[in-house]
Formats: sequence, C-alpha cells, structure tokens
Amino acid sequence: MSSLKDVYEKKEVLITGGLGFLGTNLAHRLVDLGAKITLTDAVLPQYGANQFNLDGIRDKVEINVNDIRDKSAMNQLVRDKDFIFHFAGQVAHNDSLEDPFLDLEINCSGTLTLLEACRKYNHGAKLLFSGSRLQYGKTERLPVEENHPLRPKSPYGVHKTAAEEYFIYYNREVGLRTTCFRITNPYGPRSQMKHSKYGIINWFIRQAMDGNTIEVFGEGKQKRDYIYVDDLVEAFLLAGIDGKTDGEVFNVGSGVPTEFKEMTESIVSIVGNGNIKYVEWPENYKNIETGDFYADISKIKSVTSWNPGIDLLDGIKRTFQFYEKNRDHYW
Amino acid sequence: MSSLKDVYEKKEVLITGGLGFLGTNLAHRLVDLGAKITLTDAVLPQYGANQFNLDGIRDKVEINVNDIRDKSAMNQLVRDKDFIFHFAGQVAHNDSLEDPFLDLEINCSGTLTLLEACRKYNHGAKLLFSGSRLQYGKTERLPVEENHPLRPKSPYGVHKTAAEEYFIYYNREVGLRTTCFRITNPYGPRSQMKHSKYGIINWFIRQAMDGNTIEVFGEGKQKRDYIYVDDLVEAFLLAGIDGKTDGEVFNVGSGVPTEFKEMTESIVSIVGNGNIKYVEWPENYKNIETGDFYADISKIKSVTSWNPGIDLLDGIKRTFQFYEKNRDHYW
Repeated sequence: MSSLKDVYEKKEVLITGGLGFLGTNLAHRLVDLGAKITLTDAVLPQYGANQFNLDGIRDKVEINVNDIRDKSAMNQLVRDKDFIFHFAGQVAHNDSLEDPFLDLEINCSGTLTLLEACRKYNHGAKLLFSGSRLQYGKTERLPVEENHPLRPKSPYGVHKTAAEEYFIYYNREVGLRTTCFRITNPYGPRSQMKHSKYGIINWFIRQAMDGNTIEVFGEGKQKRDYIYVDDLVEAFLLAGIDGKTDGEVFNVGSGVPTEFKEMTESIVSIVGNGNIKYVEWPENYKNIETGDFYADISKIKSVTSWNPGIDLLDGIKRTFQFYEKNRDHYW
Repeated sequence: MSSLKDVYEKKEVLITGGLGFLGTNLAHRLVDLGAKITLTDAVLPQYGANQFNLDGIRDKVEINVNDIRDKSAMNQLVRDKDFIFHFAGQVAHNDSLEDPFLDLEINCSGTLTLLEACRKYNHGAKLLFSGSRLQYGKTERLPVEENHPLRPKSPYGVHKTAAEEYFIYYNREVGLRTTCFRITNPYGPRSQMKHSKYGIINWFIRQAMDGNTIEVFGEGKQKRDYIYVDDLVEAFLLAGIDGKTDGEVFNVGSGVPTEFKEMTESIVSIVGNGNIKYVEWPENYKNIETGDFYADISKIKSVTSWNPGIDLLDGIKRTFQFYEKNRDHYW
C-alpha cells in the first residue's frame, strides 16, 4: 500500500468547517503530507472557527469564508478537488433541541449543497463525512456496531443520519465516492474552550486549568469512548485513500470504554488543579442520556490499516500541554 | 371496538395538503362521519390542489391557505385538533432529482414545522403521515415488508424517510402520538390529471379517455401494487383510532401484484378508448426503475381491522366514472 505522503502530496483538498477543531487538525497533518489545502468556513459565532488554529501553517493554506449553504460558492469550491472532507456542521446536540430548524439547515441543506455541487462539477473527488455516535441514541448492546438501531435522542441525530443517507445515496445512485464516519467522543488541541456544548474532555480540562470544581453526575459510572483527534485524523486520511471505503459507514472511536469518573480523575491529576464533585443527575439530562457507549471499531480496522494509537492519559497530557501554551487564544 | 363514527364525530381534524388528492378524499369521508374539518394547503402551482375536489362538502369544511413551512400559521392551526393528517408534500419523484432543495424544504422542513408546532401547542393529537413505497428503492425480496432495506433512488425517497424519522423521533422522545404509512401506488378520483408526474393509473385513464396511445415500457411485465384511494382513506381512519399504531410504520397497499400490461389493458378496456404501444425502456428511466414491487401488508392488517376491499377493475371503473362526469374540472 502507498504511504499517505505518496497519495496526498500535491493533491487538492477541500475541508468544510475548515477553521474548526477537526478541520484544522487535519489541515496541519495535510501540510506535513504536502497537500494543497483549501479551507472553507462560515465562521459562525459560538462555533469552533479560530484563526489561531492555523498557527504555523497560515501561509500554507487557502481560506475561503462562506456558508456551506451558499450554492454558488460551493459550486466553485468543489472543482478540481481530489479529496473533500465535510466537517461543517451544527455540532451541539442540545442546540438542536432548541432550534431544530437551524440544525436542519446546516446539517442537511448544507450537506445537500456540497453533494449537488459535486454531482454537477466534480464526480471524481473522494468525499468523507463526519457523523456522530449520537445517531445511535440509547444503546441496546455493547460494543455498538454499525448495524445497531439508529434511535437518536435529538433532531441533531436525525439530521446527521439524513446527511449520511445523502452521502450513501449519492454514492449508490449518482456514483460519487463517499465514506461516512460515526465518531464517538473526540477531544484534543484546537477545539473551542469557551462553552461546554461539545467536547466534554476539553471542557473539563479547562475547568481543571481554571481551578474550578468539575461536577460529575451520579457516581460517574457511565462509560464513554474517547478518541484523540490525531487518531481520528489518521482514520480520515486512511479511509480517503482506499476504494473499498466507497459507500460505506464506519464507527470511529478508540473502542475502549472509560468511566466518566476515571476520565475526570485523570484530567484533575494530569492538570494538577481543579477538583471533582459528584452531584445528582439534572432532570433535563436524564432525557438525553444514551446509557453506556463504546464502539465496535472492527469494521474500519478490517478495511483499512488504521489502529488508534494514543491512549486516554497520553491524549489528555497532549491536550493540556497545548492549551497551557496557547491559553490566551482559546479562553 | 368503536365504530369510526363514534370516534370521529364532532372531532377536530386538521389535514395538511388538504385540497389535494388524499386530503379531499379523506375530507369527504370525514364529513360523512360528522368530523369538524380544517384543510390547510399552500395551493402551489402544478400540485394537486383543486377547489372542485370539495364539490358537495364545500360548506362543511374550513379552508386555510398557507405554506406548511409557515411556522406562525402552523403554530395556530394545530391547536385543539384531535387528529392531524399530514399529506402536504412535494410528491414528484423526478422533480426531486431536478430540485432536491425544494423537496427538502417541503418534505423535511415542512414536516418539522408541523411537529414542532405540536410539540409546543398540542401534545394530545394523533398524527398520521403519508410516506411512500419509493423509500425502499430497488427491491431485494418480495413481498416487501417494513424491514426491507431503505435504499431510495431519489432525494424524494431520502426526504420521505427523514420525515418518517421525525415522526418516530417525536413519538419516542417527545411523546407525540404518531403513525407513518408507506403507501404503494394510490389512484382514484380527485387526483390532478394535468401532468404525468404522479399517479400512473390516473394518467393512463386520461390518456385512454382522450383516445391517445399509451406507451408501455418493455413488455409491460413489471409488477406494481395499486391501492384505491377509498381503501387508503379507510386505513388512515382505522390507524387513527388505535393506540397500538403509535410510533409505528406500516406498509399500506393492496398487497396484490399486477403487471403493467394487465393494468393498462384493463384501463383501455374499461374506458373503451385509447390504445397501447409497447416501446423500449427510455435511458433515463432505467436509473429510477425499482424492479417489481408489491407490499407485505400483514402488519397493518394484524394491528387494525383494515382490509382493502376494492379490486383493481372496480377501482378503475369508479375512477373513470368520476372523471367522465367531472372532466371539465380536471382536464
């Protein structure tokens, strides 16, 4: 198999949501691999776009500010691209309960805009999509494989599945080369740190760094599957180069269950600040709690050579070190 | 079990797409049952809305002209309703290939508007939704039961499934009382007759009545499942009164496979005009042909007392008689 450098060097890559957490971490890696990168981002307030995310590679990428729902812009931007990573999205589960229409607009209409642009102007690109473990909803069996029922607990989950259906439809019926991920709980450098709406590990690292008390619900026994962003980026790159991933959906996570209590204690211990308080489950959280979750990642491991390599302690350390150094740009 | 009259008499009923084919046939039946009926319809050009559809019941129903995407209007209209039948939709498979955004707007955003209105202003109504057999796409096994894979061949099918997911989500997570149908090929009086985009039997009846040549693709061997609108209306009414239908999806069709050739010959024979010509499959139809389709309707028959009673010959006769009498209002 070719190395990633062989494949991505000098290739044209478009990343939607390109100034955000996933987009910029991928961009850093793609700069190393010698790709020609265009980042498109709407830079909506409250979302993850942050120019500092490009520190060190600012002069090696093109930035195009536009909404993913802007058809004319997308019709231009997709042309001549070899790879398109679609990360633009409304990403806050709870916000979708408050305003499901905005979530529909960004996550469905935005995705349709990208795919229609490719149908018209670029049939050859490989397209990769970031879905979510929240598409599954309440878990019935563990670990969760891709055939687990999809019973999401928010419009966000309904819309992510509809967007995934678009990707699969455009592969099956139109012939576009598309691959979808359902990502567990990602964390790492370059995520926004201003609010708690997504990225629980990042948020808790901030709380610890600020010397705050971190509230853990119940006894902290609920299990989650945390994936470090560099591992996730590697999964996208490896899925991108393999034709066997066309039209397929993959879980992407660590595959390792970690109790909330263990995750929180690790953060407080590594950061060396903050403390933990166990509190009752708030009423409105009961409704959206999915039960324990960890992913069966055997499908992506069998189709690609991907294997997540960064364990939770290492990942928390790297994340903490990044924000310790760059705090001013994220607080 | 109570009779339909016991249940629907004096009840408040809202029908979206209320001036169209399904909506007005249901309204006629509900007038007989003594319900208080409000019809909402956007009266979009090229769609099925036709004031003559209300001939005989015009003074027994309320009409509210508004787009299903109009949040303020829907927030008002859903209040105090006991039953809501959601038939408003973009219904042309091929149009969704031309303009998937309009299809998304009407079929998803419109449906979300209705359900959000109910979440806020009417938790008690029973909601029923008209999905389509086109959600299944190419058939893998026959008869098609509800667990058959959903691999639609157009954005229309993707969006109907997304709308269905909304209905199921709002039942599961919000507690609304929702039921979804996947309808085979409906036909009968009060369907528009101006273009061929939906309702193949209706369109062929017009062709025969006009003395035209009806073109049948290939040898006319492809099987379809045709359901007469009165049977379909009865299925909606029976599903509406049964709590066991909450949160469920049902195929609704005749369950009887009929070859295209047989259907067409029956029409020409009953109408006593027109003729048939067998022609090659057009290139652009190959892509959207689903293969033979007929539905397994055992689920709805086991949960309700519904049983389709009008066979194809009888249905074609009734449809022909309606348009023979009322031709001027539909041609």
